[in-house]
Amino acid sequence: MMRRFGVAHPLFEKHQNTLHKALAATRSRLCWSPYAEVSAGDTALNGGDEAIEAYRGAQFYLDQPGVIGRCGNESSPYGLALSIAYPQCAPDALIAAAKVASGSWGKLANETRVGLCLEALERLHQGGSELAQALMHTTGQALSLARSQGVTQALARGLEAVAVAWREMSAVSPDALWERPAGAQGAVQVHKRYVVAPRGVGLLLTCANAPTWMAYPALFASLATGNAVIIKPHPTVILPLALTVAVLRQTLKENGFDANLVSLLVDESDAPATRELAVHPDIALIDYSGPRELGEWLREHARQARVFCFHDATNCAVIDSTHDYKGMLRYLVASLAWYSGQMPSSPQNVFIPAGGIATDEGVVSAAQFSRDLAYALGKLCEEPARAAEVLGAILSPATLAHLDSCNASESLIRASTPIEHPRWPSARLRTPVVLAALPSDEALFAPPQRGATVFVITVATTAGALVIAERVMSEQGALELLLYTTNPPVQSMAEEVAMRAGVRLSSNFSGTMAQAMILNLPAAFSDFQGGGANPASNATLVDGQFVSRRFSFAELRSRQVVI
Amino acid sequence: MMRRFGVAHPLFEKHQNTLHKALAATRSRLCWSPYAEVSAGDTALNGGDEAIEAYRGAQFYLDQPGVIGRCGNESSPYGLALSIAYPQCAPDALIAAAKVASGSWGKLANETRVGLCLEALERLHQGGSELAQALMHTTGQALSLARSQGVTQALARGLEAVAVAWREMSAVSPDALWERPAGAQGAVQVHKRYVVAPRGVGLLLTCANAPTWMAYPALFASLATGNAVIIKPHPTVILPLALTVAVLRQTLKENGFDANLVSLLVDESDAPATRELAVHPDIALIDYSGPRELGEWLREHARQARVFCFHDATNCAVIDSTHDYKGMLRYLVASLAWYSGQMPSSPQNVFIPAGGIATDEGVVSAAQFSRDLAYALGKLCEEPARAAEVLGAILSPATLAHLDSCNASESLIRASTPIEHPRWPSARLRTPVVLAALPSDEALFAPPQRGATVFVITVATTAGALVIAERVMSEQGALELLLYTTNPPVQSMAEEVAMRAGVRLSSNFSGTMAQAMILNLPAAFSDFQGGGANPASNATLVDGQFVSRRFSFAELRSRQVVI
Repeated sequence: MMRRFGVAHPLFEKHQNTLHKALAATRSRLCWSPYAEVSAGDTALNGGDEAIEAYRGAQFYLDQPGVIGRCGNESSPYGLALSIAYPQCAPDALIAAAKVASGSWGKLANETRVGLCLEALERLHQGGSELAQALMHTTGQALSLARSQGVTQALARGLEAVAVAWREMSAVSPDALWERPAGAQGAVQVHKRYVVAPRGVGLLLTCANAPTWMAYPALFASLATGNAVIIKPHPTVILPLALTVAVLRQTLKENGFDANLVSLLVDESDAPATRELAVHPDIALIDYSGPRELGEWLREHARQARVFCFHDATNCAVIDSTHDYKGMLRYLVASLAWYSGQMPSSPQNVFIPAGGIATDEGVVSAAQFSRDLAYALGKLCEEPARAAEVLGAILSPATLAHLDSCNASESLIRASTPIEHPRWPSARLRTPVVLAALPSDEALFAPPQRGATVFVITVATTAGALVIAERVMSEQGALELLLYTTNPPVQSMAEEVAMRAGVRLSSNFSGTMAQAMILNLPAAFSDFQGGGANPASNATLVDGQFVSRRFSFAELRSRQVVI
Repeated sequence: MMRRFGVAHPLFEKHQNTLHKALAATRSRLCWSPYAEVSAGDTALNGGDEAIEAYRGAQFYLDQPGVIGRCGNESSPYGLALSIAYPQCAPDALIAAAKVASGSWGKLANETRVGLCLEALERLHQGGSELAQALMHTTGQALSLARSQGVTQALARGLEAVAVAWREMSAVSPDALWERPAGAQGAVQVHKRYVVAPRGVGLLLTCANAPTWMAYPALFASLATGNAVIIKPHPTVILPLALTVAVLRQTLKENGFDANLVSLLVDESDAPATRELAVHPDIALIDYSGPRELGEWLREHARQARVFCFHDATNCAVIDSTHDYKGMLRYLVASLAWYSGQMPSSPQNVFIPAGGIATDEGVVSAAQFSRDLAYALGKLCEEPARAAEVLGAILSPATLAHLDSCNASESLIRASTPIEHPRWPSARLRTPVVLAALPSDEALFAPPQRGATVFVITVATTAGALVIAERVMSEQGALELLLYTTNPPVQSMAEEVAMRAGVRLSSNFSGTMAQAMILNLPAAFSDFQGGGANPASNATLVDGQFVSRRFSFAELRSRQVVI
């Protein structure tokens, strides 16, 4: 699979074993990652609070062109003011510098670009403890989630993108001596070169809830295929991306490449630059994750660019029957509660047949299921330290008001209650609210909710539940359908629904809390995320098209002497 | 590379050797095709006029659903009325039937779909002589071009698409037993299946000048990845697609598959159905080749579909210097005259420096070059039989009026003159018109012309010519830049231009007429066509994204017992 032209770049030599293994993993889909979990003791900063404390009130240093001032006004969902001032740069200056940088970057050998990407991933991993702290205090994720999803899984997904990029770029020989007989006149010979031609400058608009996880595949897919990337973070979650940009720029610079290949663009939230920037003629790629409204605007208006979008989703769970009622409840509440339902794949709607469900504990009525779910959720959240670890903090203050209004609903199954964080008393910690609903409430439960809102929807039959779930997921967008059934025809029906709606199907998941955590996180190299068949995503992480749309093969051919 | 699950479909077994070789060719880019050139004696119909005569005035039979009448009003550019009546079907009936057919087709093993595609390609090749006749008398191509481009190259490009589809579908294991340690609680095991999930129903809108060549890659890419295809031909060029659909439906039926997977939609030219059809919610893929205006409309309005477009192009030639002046002239006039410049990659604009060009015959002034080009074109066309073979016929009657108006230009270098076809006196045969232009005429020479119109543009310097050519190609769209230079810095500059403008660069092509014919036809498995970096095409024939955007990997996962 590896092509060699003389001596490859030392960074490629250094990391090519990792690339080999990553390539194998993209095919085998088995559990693999070169990035060890981040633990407290593995960096100079010891992973403690020092990392975030060092940044509070600081001037973040980035030697970018076109600095016009400083801005940034993040505050931690755990209650700390961060007040970090980032250099604010003129978008035109960043685009111009990125264009220059991509010009020479795009001409490097594929090996060189890939080697540099792998080096940068390794360095990001070395700074993982600090990055996890930054993620925690911007997204509100618990530290454990920030470490696993935001650091190690994000890095592994970035590596996955590099491996797929390598695969797609290597699908074609770098050159060929093409020869075709032309009868009595001898053969026609043409020397052809096939060169990866990148699109140009990419704009990466990152989200607030899973910024590195969503950004790294796009970032590294674009870089590996020769493009420059300007990262514009969500104004409330800048630090993790600023750290990322700093590591990338440093890695580029130390290896003699133009650091302006990757830059950070921050703006004032009252003067957002996104739309103007997105239609700039030099922006050839846009990767966006966030609410659907802006995504549709981008697809409508940024016609000069290839637009990859990832939006809020209405994920569903359909309960039909189970051999492991307790295990199912454990898995369900873990999925609903984890990071307060603010994960991209968090389920929002739980469908249950009106006649109840067959379980290993006998038939459980719909009403009983609702009570059991509420009880299990209560148990999970009753010990504050554990609750804090599971729930994380609520990303947006607006969600608190939303939860309060849900608490006032007549359909309340379990109210959202405040939890005191063992350490930061003003942290925004709330348990999820659980509401009862009927199919006639579709207008209510169909749109993606702010986190921590769960509907238990009683439907006449499981088949009916699948019909509604399919419609909601197809129209509103979704990533995942959870299914509990012991009934093979229902399993088949759900598989058809999942295929048509373009969602991942997870059947009969159960286990302990720790196991649920593992199962809930889509795994790099193994799980696909967003197939493009519903509005939740056309950013298909990580398949061939996610990468191959970022470049084309340019062909340069010249006539050879006739034989 | 091949995956085996028990016994594959017999058609896969039959053709897998071809698939193996095709896969190797997509990578090596060497000259290869399993499809022998079509010659006069190789079919039951002996390749004579019987084929087209048998269809004239006939009722074309296709057992499609929803027949509401008959229509079709083709006439040959060689002057024969064809008057073939095709079944006209209600679009909704075809879409509904295609949807049903794609449902079961999409669930077949990749091997089965690929096997059927390879069988259909072989059968189309068996009927190649008839197909070439049909192409000749609808597109106006000479029989030799219809045979090479419209049959053997079109089939090879179809096979190339099947091979790339196989490669992309095989990039991921069909299943995996994913296992991750979870500390004291043992490992978490998940069984995952990865299934090719097709987009659904594709609409294939074919063009008038190269209908099979443009259509077969899209048709077979869609079919191999599990989609249904409705082919809607250009109203003046129906027969080649009707024959194609007939062969595909027959192949499907004989092998026990739903023939409605592929259907033909014809409409009255005064009541065109394209726009209404294109925005139908069940149309998930659109492949279109033709004028840019409709392509932009499709991209703007058919938002429910993935749209692949291929438009008219303004291909350019830049002359700087040459070691083989005569060979260059031969190649240039062959390229300009072949099929009267109606090929997608025909050059339209020839740029020459005002100071003339250095050649093996001394410096040739710009004026002398123009005279020599006109003379060489005259020589090529002076013998009617040979002229007919090179020029083919003019596709659209409107082009004749355009050529007449060009003939009246004050900038005329060589007028377009009628040629009498040795056999069909009312054939639309005209030599290309050659006009002189200056950079200030850019508004005139930038837009793609109807065929047979050539501009010789005198520019101060070669560097200036490259600047104008890059702008024109980037703004108007182009597939190819021809370059003649003996000067390495000019070669480098042109390579940069080609990379930025997203066109194929062909440097210093020369040779006899027969060799020029071979070099002019982009070769399947070797040449790329349309990289997506300029408006001429986002249908990148045939790279990974051209195929992988037609499906996604659906993931179905279920929990295994904890070890």
